[in-house]
Amino acid sequence: MREHTFTTVGEVKRKKGEIPEIGIAVIGFGFMGKAHLNAYKKIPYIYWPPVVKINLKKLCGIPEEQVKENQIRYGFKEYTTDWKELIKDEGIQVFDNCGPTNLHKEPCIEAAKAGKNIFCEKPLGRNAGEAKEMLDAVEKVGVKHMCGFNYRFVPAIRLAKDLIEKGELGQIYHFRARYLQEWIADPNFPFVWRLSKKVSGSGALGDLGAHSIDLARFLIGEPKSVMGITKTFVKERPKAEGSREKMPVDVDDAVAVAIEFENGAIGTLEASRFCPGKKSQNIFEINGSKGSLSWDMLRLNELQFYSTKDEAKGIGGSRTISVTESFHPFYKEWWPHGHIIGWEHTTIHEIKHFLEAVVKGEEISPYGATFEDGYKCAVICDAILESAETGKRIEIGY
Amino acid sequence: MREHTFTTVGEVKRKKGEIPEIGIAVIGFGFMGKAHLNAYKKIPYIYWPPVVKINLKKLCGIPEEQVKENQIRYGFKEYTTDWKELIKDEGIQVFDNCGPTNLHKEPCIEAAKAGKNIFCEKPLGRNAGEAKEMLDAVEKVGVKHMCGFNYRFVPAIRLAKDLIEKGELGQIYHFRARYLQEWIADPNFPFVWRLSKKVSGSGALGDLGAHSIDLARFLIGEPKSVMGITKTFVKERPKAEGSREKMPVDVDDAVAVAIEFENGAIGTLEASRFCPGKKSQNIFEINGSKGSLSWDMLRLNELQFYSTKDEAKGIGGSRTISVTESFHPFYKEWWPHGHIIGWEHTTIHEIKHFLEAVVKGEEISPYGATFEDGYKCAVICDAILESAETGKRIEIGY
Amino acid sequence: MREHTFTTVGEVKRKKGEIPEIGIAVIGFGFMGKAHLNAYKKIPYIYWPPVVKINLKKLCGIPEEQVKENQIRYGFKEYTTDWKELIKDEGIQVFDNCGPTNLHKEPCIEAAKAGKNIFCEKPLGRNAGEAKEMLDAVEKVGVKHMCGFNYRFVPAIRLAKDLIEKGELGQIYHFRARYLQEWIADPNFPFVWRLSKKVSGSGALGDLGAHSIDLARFLIGEPKSVMGITKTFVKERPKAEGSREKMPVDVDDAVAVAIEFENGAIGTLEASRFCPGKKSQNIFEINGSKGSLSWDMLRLNELQFYSTKDEAKGIGGSRTISVTESFHPFYKEWWPHGHIIGWEHTTIHEIKHFLEAVVKGEEISPYGATFEDGYKCAVICDAILESAETGKRIEIGY
Amino acid sequence: MREHTFTTVGEVKRKKGEIPEIGIAVIGFGFMGKAHLNAYKKIPYIYWPPVVKINLKKLCGIPEEQVKENQIRYGFKEYTTDWKELIKDEGIQVFDNCGPTNLHKEPCIEAAKAGKNIFCEKPLGRNAGEAKEMLDAVEKVGVKHMCGFNYRFVPAIRLAKDLIEKGELGQIYHFRARYLQEWIADPNFPFVWRLSKKVSGSGALGDLGAHSIDLARFLIGEPKSVMGITKTFVKERPKAEGSREKMPVDVDDAVAVAIEFENGAIGTLEASRFCPGKKSQNIFEINGSKGSLSWDMLRLNELQFYSTKDEAKGIGGSRTISVTESFHPFYKEWWPHGHIIGWEHTTIHEIKHFLEAVVKGEEISPYGATFEDGYKCAVICDAILESAETGKRIEIGY
Repeated sequence: MREHTFTTVGEVKRKKGEIPEIGIAVIGFGFMGKAHLNAYKKIPYIYWPPVVKINLKKLCGIPEEQVKENQIRYGFKEYTTDWKELIKDEGIQVFDNCGPTNLHKEPCIEAAKAGKNIFCEKPLGRNAGEAKEMLDAVEKVGVKHMCGFNYRFVPAIRLAKDLIEKGELGQIYHFRARYLQEWIADPNFPFVWRLSKKVSGSGALGDLGAHSIDLARFLIGEPKSVMGITKTFVKERPKAEGSREKMPVDVDDAVAVAIEFENGAIGTLEASRFCPGKKSQNIFEINGSKGSLSWDMLRLNELQFYSTKDEAKGIGGSRTISVTESFHPFYKEWWPHGHIIGWEHTTIHEIKHFLEAVVKGEEISPYGATFEDGYKCAVICDAILESAETGKRIEIGY
Repeated sequence: MREHTFTTVGEVKRKKGEIPEIGIAVIGFGFMGKAHLNAYKKIPYIYWPPVVKINLKKLCGIPEEQVKENQIRYGFKEYTTDWKELIKDEGIQVFDNCGPTNLHKEPCIEAAKAGKNIFCEKPLGRNAGEAKEMLDAVEKVGVKHMCGFNYRFVPAIRLAKDLIEKGELGQIYHFRARYLQEWIADPNFPFVWRLSKKVSGSGALGDLGAHSIDLARFLIGEPKSVMGITKTFVKERPKAEGSREKMPVDVDDAVAVAIEFENGAIGTLEASRFCPGKKSQNIFEINGSKGSLSWDMLRLNELQFYSTKDEAKGIGGSRTISVTESFHPFYKEWWPHGHIIGWEHTTIHEIKHFLEAVVKGEEISPYGATFEDGYKCAVICDAILESAETGKRIEIGY
Repeated sequence: MREHTFTTVGEVKRKKGEIPEIGIAVIGFGFMGKAHLNAYKKIPYIYWPPVVKINLKKLCGIPEEQVKENQIRYGFKEYTTDWKELIKDEGIQVFDNCGPTNLHKEPCIEAAKAGKNIFCEKPLGRNAGEAKEMLDAVEKVGVKHMCGFNYRFVPAIRLAKDLIEKGELGQIYHFRARYLQEWIADPNFPFVWRLSKKVSGSGALGDLGAHSIDLARFLIGEPKSVMGITKTFVKERPKAEGSREKMPVDVDDAVAVAIEFENGAIGTLEASRFCPGKKSQNIFEINGSKGSLSWDMLRLNELQFYSTKDEAKGIGGSRTISVTESFHPFYKEWWPHGHIIGWEHTTIHEIKHFLEAVVKGEEISPYGATFEDGYKCAVICDAILESAETGKRIEIGY
Repeated sequence: MREHTFTTVGEVKRKKGEIPEIGIAVIGFGFMGKAHLNAYKKIPYIYWPPVVKINLKKLCGIPEEQVKENQIRYGFKEYTTDWKELIKDEGIQVFDNCGPTNLHKEPCIEAAKAGKNIFCEKPLGRNAGEAKEMLDAVEKVGVKHMCGFNYRFVPAIRLAKDLIEKGELGQIYHFRARYLQEWIADPNFPFVWRLSKKVSGSGALGDLGAHSIDLARFLIGEPKSVMGITKTFVKERPKAEGSREKMPVDVDDAVAVAIEFENGAIGTLEASRFCPGKKSQNIFEINGSKGSLSWDMLRLNELQFYSTKDEAKGIGGSRTISVTESFHPFYKEWWPHGHIIGWEHTTIHEIKHFLEAVVKGEEISPYGATFEDGYKCAVICDAILESAETGKRIEIGY
């Protein structure tokens, strides 16, 4: 892991005894944009006393009518439809990119050049090449950078990481994960930007599988090789609901992968948008010589943990840990145990982590994903696509 | 159900074309207070376009140092340590009482007299007598009033109500519920205000069981009779952690009830704080001639539903419905399906329901619980305590 | 617990070096009868080397055509339609009564008088009076006697008992159980003998609730008092499928109970045949100061166990123990772990326990239920019915 | 699927009006042998009226002392330590091979030549070559043949097949399966024959993965290609418990596979003996355009089924079907619904299917697995091993 030193560029100005203020710019207010905006609204009163004063400076998006309305809705000082205005604005220290994937590279690189700290949603680029350019840009300038792998900020997953680091699982033998959704199983579901390679780079792989890949790296370590198959089940779709005009789908609808890790573990990955009933089943399971772990996004407050320590007494069994105690990761600011948090909280924890690193000059890694993690994930995604195309095992090399 | 007409007192002033503004006063900033404050912060940007402008006017609590800090934290205009100042303030239209139970009656009655709309946390009073005085007060003046039975605002529970109302369960035969926690199973856990009858009225019954009773009434209808047992397992506790000084516990640690409903259904209720592993297990199950339903707070986004319709085909089975679709109750403002919400969202839905009723002059009932519901719940709680003491079945009469 | 000494009557004859042989008579070959017959067929090759040689002497039942066919089917030497012939037969040492409840008392008493060891299905009698007469009869003669509470012989439940006896749950605070079925939720389901008080004594209570009561006594100890409600939802039913002629139902369709134990624990019991989707949900849950346990018949190989010991490390959680290890109770004769057993195996374990006690002169109790347990269960059932009728808490006295 | 015609060789002799008798020979009385022996003991009284009379003719195994004891235990007429004696015995019509994998080929081929109907446990041979020789032998002679893929005889899995055949899942998109065990996760667990390539052919793949592969073929159809990774985590083990002498492990400890089917579906397979807590987790999941299915061996009486039909009403959810109704596959001979069966019952159903086919001259396929299925499974296993070795996608060709 390379060092991320905090330099003077984009640095937050402080006056003695005052809470430092950060000027924030956000691109996008759709799904992930809304999740980020929610985080910026909640952080000021949830984390107390505050370590940072959030100044919602500029919201960027299209169409103008909507961005204008969302400016008011979320309380931004200004709005724009041109991301370049964000770059120019010297009052902005954090550049938060929630735009579609084809709008990640250029804006982020320009923002880096302007010395802004950058949070970019995943996938970082449409492919490893783009991601590498982005990584190089932020490293050259030395700004803080983070890539939106929010599942690292689930309390149960952080607890999983803690258990693995403490050796509670012993030597890791297996990692298996899948991220399954259902929303395009119907062939008449209309075309959307996520189905265009030009916009998204890949399909289920970059959208869903990227999360599993990042969790694998976060929890288990670097992959050594991959072998995979991709499939596009529905090759064209109506341009809009009920429309006769068709649009070609040129990304993967689903992917299946056999994976091998540097530490010797093996396992499988799957991502698909063709699984009826799977509202958003992001799930993983890990087996080691001393125990096993598993997690499911639909019950995100729970961690399943099996320890061989209990076996001798005849009472070994997979435990359902309700990761909602005040001493569990991220939980002390929330509610009494058993009063669960939801998906949105993962983003709150993540952005809080980023802002704190920016103002305190702390490390993003290893708990937060950086552009380096975004890049490595892209390398692995590209290797999977290459394996699917060539029918060969592809060794991972960054 | 009595009519709740919206009168001129405490009415929100409107100017044509402007969003009406409501001045809010809140007592308390502990667990439930924080949940309400969180709701007031989120409603303005989650529900859009807005139907109400929230003016956080005054926060009340003790000690002064803390209330002052929380005033800043949540952005209130003013603070006070004296609830009477809230009554006098003519800029306050909503009086939100999250104080301990012994601070419910007098402040709420005074607020009613001053024409303020009132949200009061449950249990409404320490007993049915107090609750009746409170109900009479709000009805006399004609203000809007609501009692904090927030589980009515869980999407899965609202869906349950819809299914029952549509007849999907047929004739109801059974309702069984329990609300179990674990936090005082250790006899050395120190005394807290929730263990004092003078402050709380009752123990597990009013704190936890009241939720089950309200859900029973909400979903199934009025109880006809109850038979119950209460128990105080630990009769005195350290005054503080590690303290030698002891404080007597004069409330129920746990309660078990056999219940009969007006519609002929029977079932059981249990509430306890002595159940290791039960972080906050608020659970119910309903059986009718055509189907069954169950719900568990720890997986609050899920509803279990069994329909006899599927039996003939050999594929009958209890379904785990992920109540997270945009067309499910309360969900369209939140996240894509499968991206679950948490416990705090129930309070957001509830307070939004209240504010909307206040500004639009809509009904609180039947979906929101009013002081009438708070009073009826108190009557049932008192009947259970009487049954426990006398060993007799007690008929419910309001 | 009274002593059960093994006397000379009904004693199995042994010759030195030979496996003792037991002559078996069975009444009934319906549901429970078939389960017993299956046990007699399997015990000889599952338990090896054998401690007993099973001689299937006489099968009794009606109509003659069917009993004759079942004689051949199960390999009995003879058949009869008159239970009195079993009494007279000196080659019979074990009298196994799987007849309807109204055929329990007289045959068992006569068999006792004839010195036969008796296994009688539950409920022992139609009421406590009948059960007491039966208990007195077997105790007077001194034969071995057992009552068919087969759930004591589920590996997971025996493990539960072990954990409780070792103190793993600490002081017991709660026991809650329910046994729910669905088969008569449809009002057009025709009348059967289980719905006649004259034949069965009671309805869901004696048929299902009796199992929960026995498990409560087995696991937790003696009840102190009960308060209960019963309900007959459908008061008359077609005499046969589609028949216009109606038969009155004079037993309880469902029962709900609040219960208190001698050791201070409280809880609830429910039994019903009106719960769609509940194929046979026999379930219990126990909470103590140091942990909790629960079990569900539909997943009978699993025990849920929560221990407070794990809490300090932040990894407390309810464990799903797969009670299928060779070192788990009853399992070593079966299959490799994870290769589950079914419901029928509980009866095999139970009858093997009985036969072994008969030939070795061992104790039936505390693991096996005797007529004393059958009687005590009947006393509790009667108390529940009395409470339901009088509306009063009834103290249990044997 | 080739035709399997029933020829005169090995045919069961019938006399008019009599139940035909089959002479049975069994090799082995360990785990699977015991399961088969249990089936032969139970079939005569469970299936009534009987269609076949079972004559337990000869039991074969080593050491002599044990086979002799098991002859008595299970009631065989004779025993032998030499399988060739079974071949010679003209009173044997069914040759049941539960020996280790290296004892499959020669005995089965000889038995075929002698005109005996053959049941052989899986994996059929140590590799596809052996399996092919065996298939050719049985087809040449025209005897009935079956390979022990017993999971086809789980009621829930047969129901799954029915649902798929009726089109309830629509077009199949995905099949994913894993069979995970834990028993050699400890490196000090001693060497056993299952870890020797010479005896077993492969490791987790042939022992566990073969079941998943057969279920894939049974439920979804033929695979088109595979890509896989194998791993031997522990390369040598103590010769016996505590022994210093080491034995090399030359089979796979685990395997991970990405698979593609002829019908366009893709998915993953995994098999491992290194998964703590996985007592025997044989699990699969299928997604189609109209629904999803999943099953888990530890809860083998349950089938999870999701249908898109329910979505429009907002009540779509995965159903837990308790496949224990009398109208469910294989269940009518057993117990009332909710009274679950266990793992052993799958073998009873399977052997009953075989014996019925033998005496009635019925088809084994498609519900029962034949040597053709055993051979095709072996081809796929070999392809996975080849892919693991070469790093290339391997097309399946039979």
